[in-house]
Amino acid sequence: MLTVEYRTDPERVAELLPKEATLVDDDPGAVALIWADWQSCGDDFSEILDPVRSQYKECFVVIRCRWHDETWSRCPYIWVDKDFALARGYHQGYPKKLGEIWMTRPITVGRAGPRLEVGGRFGATLTAGGRRLAEARLELTRETGSPGFVNGHPMLHNRYWPAIESDGSASMDELVTMRGYDGETADVWAGTAELELYDSPIEELSLLDPLEIIGGYYHRVGVSWRGGTTLATA
Amino acid sequence: MLTVEYRTDPERVAELLPKEATLVDDDPGAVALIWADWQSCGDDFSEILDPVRSQYKECFVVIRCRWHDETWSRCPYIWVDKDFALARGYHQGYPKKLGEIWMTRPITVGRAGPRLEVGGRFGATLTAGGRRLAEARLELTRETGSPGFVNGHPMLHNRYWPAIESDGSASMDELVTMRGYDGETADVWAGTAELELYDSPIEELSLLDPLEIIGGYYHRVGVSWRGGTTLATA
Amino acid sequence: MLTVEYRTDPERVAELLPKEATLVDDDPGAVALIWADWQSCGDDFSEILDPVRSQYKECFVVIRCRWHDETWSRCPYIWVDKDFALARGYHQGYPKKLGEIWMTRPITVGRAGPRLEVGGRFGATLTAGGRRLAEARLELTRETGSPGFVNGHPMLHNRYWPAIESDGSASMDELVTMRGYDGETADVWAGTAELELYDSPIEELSLLDPLEIIGGYYHRVGVSWRGGTTLATA
Amino acid sequence: MLTVEYRTDPERVAELLPKEATLVDDDPGAVALIWADWQSCGDDFSEILDPVRSQYKECFVVIRCRWHDETWSRCPYIWVDKDFALARGYHQGYPKKLGEIWMTRPITVGRAGPRLEVGGRFGATLTAGGRRLAEARLELTRETGSPGFVNGHPMLHNRYWPAIESDGSASMDELVTMRGYDGETADVWAGTAELELYDSPIEELSLLDPLEIIGGYYHRVGVSWRGGTTLATA
Repeated sequence: MLTVEYRTDPERVAELLPKEATLVDDDPGAVALIWADWQSCGDDFSEILDPVRSQYKECFVVIRCRWHDETWSRCPYIWVDKDFALARGYHQGYPKKLGEIWMTRPITVGRAGPRLEVGGRFGATLTAGGRRLAEARLELTRETGSPGFVNGHPMLHNRYWPAIESDGSASMDELVTMRGYDGETADVWAGTAELELYDSPIEELSLLDPLEIIGGYYHRVGVSWRGGTTLATA
Repeated sequence: MLTVEYRTDPERVAELLPKEATLVDDDPGAVALIWADWQSCGDDFSEILDPVRSQYKECFVVIRCRWHDETWSRCPYIWVDKDFALARGYHQGYPKKLGEIWMTRPITVGRAGPRLEVGGRFGATLTAGGRRLAEARLELTRETGSPGFVNGHPMLHNRYWPAIESDGSASMDELVTMRGYDGETADVWAGTAELELYDSPIEELSLLDPLEIIGGYYHRVGVSWRGGTTLATA
Repeated sequence: MLTVEYRTDPERVAELLPKEATLVDDDPGAVALIWADWQSCGDDFSEILDPVRSQYKECFVVIRCRWHDETWSRCPYIWVDKDFALARGYHQGYPKKLGEIWMTRPITVGRAGPRLEVGGRFGATLTAGGRRLAEARLELTRETGSPGFVNGHPMLHNRYWPAIESDGSASMDELVTMRGYDGETADVWAGTAELELYDSPIEELSLLDPLEIIGGYYHRVGVSWRGGTTLATA
Repeated sequence: MLTVEYRTDPERVAELLPKEATLVDDDPGAVALIWADWQSCGDDFSEILDPVRSQYKECFVVIRCRWHDETWSRCPYIWVDKDFALARGYHQGYPKKLGEIWMTRPITVGRAGPRLEVGGRFGATLTAGGRRLAEARLELTRETGSPGFVNGHPMLHNRYWPAIESDGSASMDELVTMRGYDGETADVWAGTAELELYDSPIEELSLLDPLEIIGGYYHRVGVSWRGGTTLATA
């Protein structure tokens, strides 16, 4: 995963919160834009041997909020490049769309890529609907203990599906939380980051324009997921 | 649209019906496999000028059933090649997955394609997960009034979303119906058709193996859609 | 095909000419940017029934020049979305790269697209390497006899392949010409056009920035191709 | 890279050799089918920070032959998923086409993939033109010194381009050799492999049907390339 944490106008974050949720007090405009290059499988591991069904990349925004006296992370925008990940994301409350996601991989032989070492340089890009939406660059400066602070809380997601009557009513309108288990993290590096977001007539991502970069991170992560908890239904 | 109607084992159709629905009496094993090459837009027509957001292709199965003394059409499998069509399909009760869909277009100049005339030959293919799932061929024999009988009824669809608890309970479990309005049809041709379905370890389409071809059709269609009706909730 | 003809700085055109070729006298900065949505096949027509091998879209630039007292058309940049078209293009002297090409199709039923009539509006876009490079819009104003004047001459193309020694020498360095036969044109419409070219760090297209729009065209075309003529070898 | 070495009918190998080349004496039917997941860049490393231009996957066949008293490796078939790699391959004599290539990546955290250790299991697949062409599986059994013997010689490639006259004559008809420099190899593992090749009406790969598996390998490799040597011109 490649993470860029930065500050945007807190008003832009507030617009993306569920009802009754509020901005956090500390650093309310903090945003994480995260690229991830995954392998994924079910309990029988069959997808691992047919990697078209296992590998996918995604790019997603994480913000934070307060709700019921707790601090939550929340994903308002996410793009992914495979349909199985898109449908699973809907189950989990991620509002996934398709995009083209690319991120540099570190290498251990040869010269065509960065090593996980001081000075290693990474790039990451996001395109959707034929328009480039985001570009990030990261140069590693030091090993660290944690890949940022924005994406560290339980997720607070809406799961919403309108009624087929298309009359403004909902067939499903839930506030849910979820987090993985058996999480394992390795190779956590911090670095200096750059980020550009680009306007698109059909995307809202650039409303979260970076005013100040907080930092950038590279890390590896493995995690399992089984389910979450419904917190509220409308 | 390119349609192949054929007969499969009615037991295979029965497996795909909602609870309380039964096979139709006449031709209970009839199936339509339909390829469609669409343009789509909202009320402001903006997608038409940015066709990456307007054009998509899909391939879908239609079967029929009886439910509450009426005859319904129903789509148990469908593949599509754009995300906006996939998400809209979920709203409508279509269980869409991504696939690569190709179908021959008729032409009016040159030689690289069929004319809409006797002897015009079309091909259509479906691939998903890197495996070819279906191939059809159609040779036009005559103009006709209707592109088949399987896809002509109101749709009877399930809209189902499991609870995030992943405990077997559902957050949304509806039986809905929908049909378009302002439908317009042109250039309806019938012909002789061939169809091959291919096994895949991760798809169920080939369970609907063709035992006998009923016929093939080409036609053009335009239709608008606004909403549907919830028939039952579990 | 959807064509936008416009004027750029003639110096930008001159940079793209082969040695010994010069700008034309009349309208030396005229450029055509053309989108095409093709079906293609060989002599046995087998690709028509397997349309993944038949259908492709492309977007290409055409300029004109004088060489040996004749006027030629020439394609300095072209993007295409299938490999068979890319390799055939290399044979013909087209410097093809892959891109995502989309263009509105006219319709005859329904509402999701323009009719071939006054006021019909079309869009066309080009993306490569995850960056949008061009967007065009066309509104039809009248039927006409010819879809522009820039792409009407025999093509003057370089076919060049460097030696594997990568020492600056060439294994193939030809100036060739080619044109199709059995060409057939229909539904030629003229209209008002808009065009935007976007900068990319890895493409030169935006150097041909439009200073003035000449016009826009829609037409259908069919053409066969067998071979060309080698005019000069270096 | 994931390599499966196997034996096919030597006659099938002989059909793919250049004129004057002959089968090798030892194991003349040996074939390597190799999947590779690359990052690639030029001398300024700019592609590394825009990984859509750096990352690509390929799947290729390697056979061996004798020519002028030396043993050579040779690539008769290769599929790749990016255009920059396709065009560079043409320069090097690789007859590249586009395909969808997937191969399992080893992991160091979590459970969604194999570790580089005894029992680690990998899958690899190739699809082109919407049809699956090859599937391989590898289970690691031991670290080893070399990832097979078929792909270890200098490459003997044809570089051929027909004249635009399409009259059977050639504009470029070369026999070339090339190999990389600064090669670096790591993590070389051997294992047991399975391989299935599938028929396609438009591909010749399945002519090289596996009669007996020799072995399978995983390894990492980095290599630089600048040029090659023209051995003969027709």
